[in-house]
Amino acid sequence: MKTLDSTPKKDGFRMPGEFEPHQGVYMLWPQRPDNWRNGGKPAQKTFAKVAETISEFEHVTVGVNDDQYANARHLLAGDVEVVEISSNDAWMRDCGATFVKNDRGGLRAVDWTFNSWGGLEDGLYFPWDKDDRVAQKMAELEHVDRYRLNDFVLEGGSIHVDGEGTLITTEECLLSQGRNPQLSKEQIEEVLKQNLNLEKVIWLKKGIYLDETNGHVDNIANFVKPGVVALAWTDDKTDPQYEISKENLDILERTTDAKGRKLKVVKLLVPKPVLITQEESEGVDAVDGTLPRTEGERLAASYVNYYTANSGIVFPLFDDPMDKVAKKTLGELYPDRKVVGVPAREILLGGGNIHCITQQIPTI
Amino acid sequence: MKTLDSTPKKDGFRMPGEFEPHQGVYMLWPQRPDNWRNGGKPAQKTFAKVAETISEFEHVTVGVNDDQYANARHLLAGDVEVVEISSNDAWMRDCGATFVKNDRGGLRAVDWTFNSWGGLEDGLYFPWDKDDRVAQKMAELEHVDRYRLNDFVLEGGSIHVDGEGTLITTEECLLSQGRNPQLSKEQIEEVLKQNLNLEKVIWLKKGIYLDETNGHVDNIANFVKPGVVALAWTDDKTDPQYEISKENLDILERTTDAKGRKLKVVKLLVPKPVLITQEESEGVDAVDGTLPRTEGERLAASYVNYYTANSGIVFPLFDDPMDKVAKKTLGELYPDRKVVGVPAREILLGGGNIHCITQQIPTI
Repeated sequence: MKTLDSTPKKDGFRMPGEFEPHQGVYMLWPQRPDNWRNGGKPAQKTFAKVAETISEFEHVTVGVNDDQYANARHLLAGDVEVVEISSNDAWMRDCGATFVKNDRGGLRAVDWTFNSWGGLEDGLYFPWDKDDRVAQKMAELEHVDRYRLNDFVLEGGSIHVDGEGTLITTEECLLSQGRNPQLSKEQIEEVLKQNLNLEKVIWLKKGIYLDETNGHVDNIANFVKPGVVALAWTDDKTDPQYEISKENLDILERTTDAKGRKLKVVKLLVPKPVLITQEESEGVDAVDGTLPRTEGERLAASYVNYYTANSGIVFPLFDDPMDKVAKKTLGELYPDRKVVGVPAREILLGGGNIHCITQQIPTI
Repeated sequence: MKTLDSTPKKDGFRMPGEFEPHQGVYMLWPQRPDNWRNGGKPAQKTFAKVAETISEFEHVTVGVNDDQYANARHLLAGDVEVVEISSNDAWMRDCGATFVKNDRGGLRAVDWTFNSWGGLEDGLYFPWDKDDRVAQKMAELEHVDRYRLNDFVLEGGSIHVDGEGTLITTEECLLSQGRNPQLSKEQIEEVLKQNLNLEKVIWLKKGIYLDETNGHVDNIANFVKPGVVALAWTDDKTDPQYEISKENLDILERTTDAKGRKLKVVKLLVPKPVLITQEESEGVDAVDGTLPRTEGERLAASYVNYYTANSGIVFPLFDDPMDKVAKKTLGELYPDRKVVGVPAREILLGGGNIHCITQQIPTI
């Protein structure tokens, strides 16, 4: 593996949309007891179920800390590959590499700096050094060269692209004080354009209400395909989520993409508020510097946090009447893919969802 | 990766000779300061040089603990692959998988139990749990299934095969009290035959004088090809090594291999005794339970501890007049391979040599 001095744009590499074909997907393994209740055991079962579900559609590799290697191998399905990748937590979307490809069979990794969603400003735990090495290790395992951005903080969950030159993100996240406060909005846009090969960045305002990632876009909006965006929505005007979604809807309906197209926006209704129970709260170690999981707190539940696999959609279930509505909407959005729900409360309790724990490797 | 219930012999898989073609080789990265002097820095340079030298002949993968990942990537040549594999020390030959193949493109791993060369009886350090997981991780990285021997202790350095049904080993090691004391010599032979697909085990007596592995065969004798064995030798009858080598020579000259052939034995002269210096001794952390590196102690230096790569031989140099003799002898033994010496004192100081730090993956 070489670390390259150029940029993907100069070299003719672009980030494909998640809906384009994959070689497979990487995940990590949850274990830290100050984030995952009961020593991570319920979350591990859920992650194993997500891995098994995705493996119906594409190859799954799970990176595991050495001290959980035997247990992960035991719990994961046989056709899921288990490799050692040390990490501080299990959010592969955010600390993993973003892969870019060209049209001549080339594949490379973009290795952003990871700082635990805000570093010493408002990051979620300390340290995050293992997480920040994950992307490099993925590049090595995939036998591809990488671009390393030592001076630019980004998580994969804070961006979505249409593969045709357009990116959506949120100002709440990318302009946060904990990422790149030394850069202007225009400078940040330029870094994205250079490293993902883009012509247009669409700036939404905020992410899902109470999202602890400073409003990652992958919990509120996603490109279904070029020209079509799924947006988390509620019709309840008393819910703080309404204003957030409405503001983003207005932006999306007013803008055009890199190809000059108007966007079609499809609303994906959120479930009723999901609150942390006493039992769930008490299962998490109390550690200074790590976000507490307090009884009664509302979690950032959204069906938009689904994973687009080869010929499949794997989306979160919240044991809510809206689960069925989400399945129906996703089925209409993806008529050529099998839509499968996985009970995902245990991932949500850790602060994210199915999209946050995956990172696809595009086909070459 | 599946763990199989059968045995390689039943499934038609055999261990190829090291002189047969390889896909590549695995190594580990030295770092423990109670074995490698000066925080492992001199050894790391030497390991990097060995990796770079072998990479002239075949693909090299180096497994590294997370806390040394960045440093190893920095020191290793660009075409050497660096993956995370936690280990307690750096002897890939001994804790790594032994690969077996069939004639239909099948490759599998044999994952012996590793116990640090003697477990609680006379092992070299405690614990050894990470080392014992290395073989499974190699199988996973190579996408092959494995046989796991939970009840049989073996290190790869204690065996050599001719790929045609014959294995050589030493009684000193395989009958030691720290490995499989519950098994008779005949039972041990049967386990080897079942798992490597053999008809004949040739039992040498002892390994190199003062070898801390209980006399691994790979420091004293090696199959150059079927029917030809290289044997570490000294003509100095006052050297304790003489009696050891002479006894083994007599055994090799009296026996036949699995095919009924008499063996041709070629003597590879050892260097003059290599002793630990005061400076070298003082560079090693003193830790209870780890073998001390005492000033003036003789090291188990032998040229037989070379690695047979695709079209190359990588052998240890000891800054000794015999270096040239070894190069000449190896050149005659391997007329079709390029013979390259690497200064290896730093590996020897850690208790082994070039063969001990490598493990080949056969071609399929």
